[in-house]
Amino acid sequence: MIWCSGWELASAVSNAGGLGLIGAGSMTPEVLQIHIKKCKVATNKPFGVNVPLLYSQSDEIIELIIREGIKIVFTSAGNPAKYTSILKENGIKVVHVVANKKFALKAAEARVDAIVAEGFEAGGHNAVEETTTMVLIPMLKEIINIPIIAAGGIGSGQAMYAVMALGADGVQIGSLFAGSIESSAHENFKKAIIESDDGGTYLTLKKLGPVRLIRNEFFNRIHNAVMEGKNNEELSEILGRGRPKLGMFEGNIDEGELEIGQISAMVKEILPVHRIINDLIIGFNHTSDKMRRMNKVK
Amino acid sequence: MIWCSGWELASAVSNAGGLGLIGAGSMTPEVLQIHIKKCKVATNKPFGVNVPLLYSQSDEIIELIIREGIKIVFTSAGNPAKYTSILKENGIKVVHVVANKKFALKAAEARVDAIVAEGFEAGGHNAVEETTTMVLIPMLKEIINIPIIAAGGIGSGQAMYAVMALGADGVQIGSLFAGSIESSAHENFKKAIIESDDGGTYLTLKKLGPVRLIRNEFFNRIHNAVMEGKNNEELSEILGRGRPKLGMFEGNIDEGELEIGQISAMVKEILPVHRIINDLIIGFNHTSDKMRRMNKVK
Repeated sequence: MIWCSGWELASAVSNAGGLGLIGAGSMTPEVLQIHIKKCKVATNKPFGVNVPLLYSQSDEIIELIIREGIKIVFTSAGNPAKYTSILKENGIKVVHVVANKKFALKAAEARVDAIVAEGFEAGGHNAVEETTTMVLIPMLKEIINIPIIAAGGIGSGQAMYAVMALGADGVQIGSLFAGSIESSAHENFKKAIIESDDGGTYLTLKKLGPVRLIRNEFFNRIHNAVMEGKNNEELSEILGRGRPKLGMFEGNIDEGELEIGQISAMVKEILPVHRIINDLIIGFNHTSDKMRRMNKVK
Repeated sequence: MIWCSGWELASAVSNAGGLGLIGAGSMTPEVLQIHIKKCKVATNKPFGVNVPLLYSQSDEIIELIIREGIKIVFTSAGNPAKYTSILKENGIKVVHVVANKKFALKAAEARVDAIVAEGFEAGGHNAVEETTTMVLIPMLKEIINIPIIAAGGIGSGQAMYAVMALGADGVQIGSLFAGSIESSAHENFKKAIIESDDGGTYLTLKKLGPVRLIRNEFFNRIHNAVMEGKNNEELSEILGRGRPKLGMFEGNIDEGELEIGQISAMVKEILPVHRIINDLIIGFNHTSDKMRRMNKVK
């Protein structure tokens, strides 16, 4: 949710009954501090911060989070053992994002409070196993005792209900909020989410680090290079730097990296967060009613 | 389900309350006729035949199916308009397997009775869109009025319940039955299914025709060739002919093509079909009870 989830989106989600997260992955500590302060003004509900652990300034970001009295941290893209103890000693709940068995076990071992289990269909960075939400959730439920928050492919209350049937204890919603009015993403990126259809996103760059992107001009160039067998050095050169910002924040739809999930194929309108959450609840309850009417199998 | 689903498996599934399918994709018309005759002896319940439409002898196979009085045909891998009229004129229900929007609409236009919607996580041949079951089912439900049978990633009654919450009207089970006692697959392939874990299968050969395989020695060779950017001619040469039979039927685990779904990561025992179906029903009802106890969201 880099370049999408600032204080405006996070506070809107928390105010509408969800747990809003500020995505620190695209922020310097100084920028993050501004977002935390604004978020505190915009909501009196709890909110959290997502911290990708591989980022160079993660030490400073963790210190800042503790200092600011944040109570919930989601960590991703790195070793869950790195900050979990220090965060928990400071009374902070820690949730780690995983996409395979190996890291789910590592996260549990690091004594995180919960995991986000993110399937292949999710946008942005993902795991080499390519395990889908439908398979990942029950697979991790079998080996993990801590709560599982499902992510990837969840674009409706119906899907929320389905992953909870699979064993999830909650859901993390990305694509729907990335395309919301309160998302800090560029309008052009939000329009690209609306226009994305079946097969409109694709997981590429599998050697360098798999990432799901909208199939735009840049995607075609880098993916062709992948298919031609270019090595990581050549790929890194085509990739360059700053493409996520270029695409998602500055709105260069042709040349930027546009990270979004497969479920973008079902997003048809740029909606305010309260409406998205309301629709999720209505859809969940409607599915609950439908499934209650279904007879058991004899 | 080529090389797995002969008369023994199909009749066992039908006898246990499912709809057994004979997989004609690995059979000559003569062999199929033997399987149909044996299946009629082994069960008095309905059973069907799956016919991949691109196979060279599909004309003869369709004729044979009509002559033998089969009442249900599942078609796949080809144009659904090809045989649907002739089958329906002969009182046969037609179900077409799709993995994307485009072919779902084509199938509905061809007036098939139902579709199988098969997600990215399914074993064997798949679509270039790579849409997962979690996304595919609600997406097709929005545009199609005929019944949808979900496939891909369904290895438990819990998952059956989940895809029905997503809008599916039924499920097609592949991997569980491929590894069953009654499957005609080689014991070595069944053991490879049991041993397959998270990330143990992978979708490769995307230019030639995407197929999900167990990562064995042959997989590594062909997938490395793909990643090196070899062209279709070079890939076809490495592929050669008869590898699915070699692996799944003759049990050459190193050099054969082993087609199975991601859910094989959760298959831990070679079980008889009646036990698999019984477990599915228990799991479905258990999930139904669990979800009934869950409160609605306010």
